[in-house]
Amino acid sequence: MTDITIKQAAEMLLANDDILVLMHRSPDGDTIGCGYALCAALRKLGKRAQPVCSDILPRVFSFLTESFEQQTFEPGFIVSVDVATETLLGEGLSVYKDRIELCIDHHPSNTGFARCGVVDGSAGACALIIAKLIREMGVKFDPFIADAIFTGVATDTGCFVFSNASAEIHRTAAEMIENGADSAMITRLIFETKSRSRLELEKMVLESLRYFHDGRTALITVTSAMMMLSGAEEGETEGIASIPRQIEGVTIGITVRERGEGSYRISVRTSDGADASRICAALGGGGHKAAAGCSIEGDLETVIKTITDAAEQELDRMI
Amino acid sequence: MTDITIKQAAEMLLANDDILVLMHRSPDGDTIGCGYALCAALRKLGKRAQPVCSDILPRVFSFLTESFEQQTFEPGFIVSVDVATETLLGEGLSVYKDRIELCIDHHPSNTGFARCGVVDGSAGACALIIAKLIREMGVKFDPFIADAIFTGVATDTGCFVFSNASAEIHRTAAEMIENGADSAMITRLIFETKSRSRLELEKMVLESLRYFHDGRTALITVTSAMMMLSGAEEGETEGIASIPRQIEGVTIGITVRERGEGSYRISVRTSDGADASRICAALGGGGHKAAAGCSIEGDLETVIKTITDAAEQELDRMI
Repeated sequence: MTDITIKQAAEMLLANDDILVLMHRSPDGDTIGCGYALCAALRKLGKRAQPVCSDILPRVFSFLTESFEQQTFEPGFIVSVDVATETLLGEGLSVYKDRIELCIDHHPSNTGFARCGVVDGSAGACALIIAKLIREMGVKFDPFIADAIFTGVATDTGCFVFSNASAEIHRTAAEMIENGADSAMITRLIFETKSRSRLELEKMVLESLRYFHDGRTALITVTSAMMMLSGAEEGETEGIASIPRQIEGVTIGITVRERGEGSYRISVRTSDGADASRICAALGGGGHKAAAGCSIEGDLETVIKTITDAAEQELDRMI
Repeated sequence: MTDITIKQAAEMLLANDDILVLMHRSPDGDTIGCGYALCAALRKLGKRAQPVCSDILPRVFSFLTESFEQQTFEPGFIVSVDVATETLLGEGLSVYKDRIELCIDHHPSNTGFARCGVVDGSAGACALIIAKLIREMGVKFDPFIADAIFTGVATDTGCFVFSNASAEIHRTAAEMIENGADSAMITRLIFETKSRSRLELEKMVLESLRYFHDGRTALITVTSAMMMLSGAEEGETEGIASIPRQIEGVTIGITVRERGEGSYRISVRTSDGADASRICAALGGGGHKAAAGCSIEGDLETVIKTITDAAEQELDRMI
């Protein structure tokens, strides 16, 4: 992949038409915000442009997706937004994987699957890069584009809570509000609304909370029975894995999620220097220092023993 | 009270010394951020200045309060920050109530208890006004002042979630980060950390959740027994009252809080045009359209019947 500047990416887009914008599978607010903002800007330039995803877009983003007219065309130019690897395109879009001309992303782990790329690993959200690209193309932000960019920066920072909520993130949020983003509606919909089933699931999950290692490790369990009884869907489990690590005094937060008979997916979140990726690597998984995952087979109690033993080793290593 | 400009307020402060800064009782991040930012700025000008409060400052703000040297002096000039009425000074500071020279506030309901005032009801946080005042006094923001101002704007907007999170709020947050505010530490401490007792209380409160009026009203109960069993302190109940209104489909969210034998404090939160103040006014209370409160005496089930009947009348009125 050839690294190019935002200016060069803008020139490529200006020179082309019938632009297909690929979003990643399990779509979040950043990839959707990027896809819709970029296509709206391209349409303002008189081009045909369509965002596409291999998965259904979550209903919560319908304020962006529902009013956006569907355009069908033979793609003349293919761009991906917020997609770190070609596998993240998902099956539905894998047909395009060798034809991606331009990749716009903020994951340092981007695998360089496109012909050209603008990858800025320091950007707290991919929507920051898209905002620069839109400015560079000379398109004025309108309320729709502003809503889309605001959605990207707000969601990728957990509503300005995470450490990636930089000065640039806040400045971009301010600029989008000034250009008509309905930030109050967006934050309320995304961060202040919970389904009844999600709340029911949270209640069950809190009942499963256990502490280990003098309260330095906390563990919650999400069983298939809890999912069924609460009526929660897959998309409603987001943020659940952050619960144990948020507890005062907890260094290692573990979520054990039942995936099938005797099969569990483990999410580990750490703080204060504990290394989640080291814990998970020892069990065949991987990830980042603060967030990692692995899979373990066995009955629930054995699985809990295995992962908490690995956590204890990490705590011992830290002393 | 004489309304004055920020420039005039800056001139008053520059002309005085031994400045006492009064914060409101039940102190939150905005009043504390204002008090410490203003005093730090005044000290940089070589003045003696001390923030004071009639209540103990919550431990979560110790990153501001602990390292700040205590200065004792006979007050030469008294300022209040984020204080809407003199009763909000609390008993410990009521001795100063007739001697307040300058009131800096953002509550439209400010009662004008001081000699002069800068009251900007459009400011999403009082810390926005303090930031302007510090600029006007010619003091450069340093990391401590930046932490304090950031704390004010972040807490009064629920970490940039509420509708008062304006473009100006985001721009000020950006400026404070650029001046050294440790925003990641602050948001993590305040918004991403929960005590074990708070989590235990949340679990009990979720178990008390009931729905009325086809799910348009949701009600939770916080009993004295729950407080005792969970070990939660008064300061740890913040945000609990928002839980029922956050539920999808709920227009009226009610929290019934036991205050003593047969005595209950009711908090009502509404959306979609329902009027919380009308519900509470009918029961002798008051507040704003989206958030109001009242007190009801009786046994718990009767109290619940009384408040849900009042909620039903409001729902009927809306049709």
